[in-house]
Amino acid sequence: MRVLFLGTSGSVPTNTRSLPAVLIKRQNEYLMFDCGEGVQRQMIKAKVGFHRKMKIFISHMHGDHVLGLLGLLQTMALMGRQQKVEVYGPEGLGRFLESAREVLQFCLTFPVEVYEICDDGVVCEEKEYIVEAAKSSHVIAGWVYALVEKPRPGKFYPEKARTLGVPEGELWSRLQHGESVKLPNGRVVSPLEVGGPPRRGRKIVYTGDTRPFEGFAGFAANADLVIHDSTFDDTLADKANLDGHSTPSQAAQQAANAKAKKLVLTHISARYADAGVLLEQARKIFSDVLVAEDFMELELPLPDS
Amino acid sequence: MRVLFLGTSGSVPTNTRSLPAVLIKRQNEYLMFDCGEGVQRQMIKAKVGFHRKMKIFISHMHGDHVLGLLGLLQTMALMGRQQKVEVYGPEGLGRFLESAREVLQFCLTFPVEVYEICDDGVVCEEKEYIVEAAKSSHVIAGWVYALVEKPRPGKFYPEKARTLGVPEGELWSRLQHGESVKLPNGRVVSPLEVGGPPRRGRKIVYTGDTRPFEGFAGFAANADLVIHDSTFDDTLADKANLDGHSTPSQAAQQAANAKAKKLVLTHISARYADAGVLLEQARKIFSDVLVAEDFMELELPLPDS
Repeated sequence: MRVLFLGTSGSVPTNTRSLPAVLIKRQNEYLMFDCGEGVQRQMIKAKVGFHRKMKIFISHMHGDHVLGLLGLLQTMALMGRQQKVEVYGPEGLGRFLESAREVLQFCLTFPVEVYEICDDGVVCEEKEYIVEAAKSSHVIAGWVYALVEKPRPGKFYPEKARTLGVPEGELWSRLQHGESVKLPNGRVVSPLEVGGPPRRGRKIVYTGDTRPFEGFAGFAANADLVIHDSTFDDTLADKANLDGHSTPSQAAQQAANAKAKKLVLTHISARYADAGVLLEQARKIFSDVLVAEDFMELELPLPDS
Repeated sequence: MRVLFLGTSGSVPTNTRSLPAVLIKRQNEYLMFDCGEGVQRQMIKAKVGFHRKMKIFISHMHGDHVLGLLGLLQTMALMGRQQKVEVYGPEGLGRFLESAREVLQFCLTFPVEVYEICDDGVVCEEKEYIVEAAKSSHVIAGWVYALVEKPRPGKFYPEKARTLGVPEGELWSRLQHGESVKLPNGRVVSPLEVGGPPRRGRKIVYTGDTRPFEGFAGFAANADLVIHDSTFDDTLADKANLDGHSTPSQAAQQAANAKAKKLVLTHISARYADAGVLLEQARKIFSDVLVAEDFMELELPLPDS
């Protein structure tokens, strides 16, 4: 699983930062969090394709987080995409897409499924992961998202399988995928008899625009990566609060409270040509922290246990 | 007067080309023709400000020509712009802006005046210029625009003014601006008595997306600069016709028919990593031709006569 930062600016882009968008590449699928203006061009620059299985999650309906969606869908259509795109986000998302499509008369070559989220909880579930949402604390309604992989089957020990008389081949494969199997002699073998305990999956939290809020520590608990709003530095905490944003110290405290492993600060205000000040402020509270840059890519390896 | 190419791609952006937008800098005013996604960031990169007097002309309501408008207006608001923006374009432009503003809840700090064009002719008039529109020949309704400067007063000859007894100062200035003045002795002096004949202004034509069409030669007659759709090369003339676009030869023939002075090809399809082939095809018909590139800037000096 890789995390590619396609846009890392605050509300206004800069020479080096495009508007907010984070792309998670997971197996044969893309999960995009926010879709700021210019995201299609950032994808082209990063050589990200337009045909892969894709879900898009919009944190809130401010233009800087959603205006890239229309151009992205249009370009996918121009490229003849066939596969559906799922788009999740706040109330108003469907109306926004519909009215724009109506006026701009663009014909999509694929279905767009829009899911407007009404309450905290699981917003989509796949075989190997779920995406959960929790209300953010911004100036308009919005959502913080967590991509949570389901536990994987434990480590497989071939010698144990052999001892129990499981013939190598299909039955091994099913045990490795967490299924129980029936031997020719009628004995049922469970994955736990031939392997270790289930291993946890990975968890990535993306905040969109938000102040620190109660409940975040639980929502983001033990995340491998928290990608957090850090629009203004600590000296502008009052402005951050007024505008519904966070400072580096607040983001770091949130990550620490959640016992997260890694923190990336993003949604960086255009006033910081050098984001070093943000990094310094966060590091005092949480050591494994980075400031996002456009096209920065992180690998999140599978945990061993 | 300078012409800055902010986006020069066809329907899909590329690594080096952003979506269509051409900015004419005329005295203290900006006139923008089309407003493709990403234009606000291109403006930032080109150090174009967000507070100047501005008119925007949309050629047609396809996403690649208009999707940058919302983000541009939003950023102007975030920067506290006070002065109005005038936006001209086809029917549907007002509805597009209204519905997006309603869903995205962005508060503008300045008035946006929307003018939907219904027929060929002058769409706006200022003291020193007009902008005219003519129907384009694309797959949806759209407009080709011409910025036409009004004639300037003729060259001023100080010795003639002195001979006629016009005192240096305010009266000279008024004569230089094309006004007649009354001398202290009651004699009225006209600008033609102290200067040459009125000098022509400059004319720039921007086609947006269009096939060649009848009437273009008249509309663009004697233009100093024609900025023309040249999406596909000559070997794809059938596709160009089907999709409502032009080839380099067609653009060059249009410019030649109009007796234009200079031609710039734009709206370049992503398939041309090297646009040399387009230039070659056009040059056979029209010699003073360029292929637009992002951030290319042309100076259009005032003609002497």
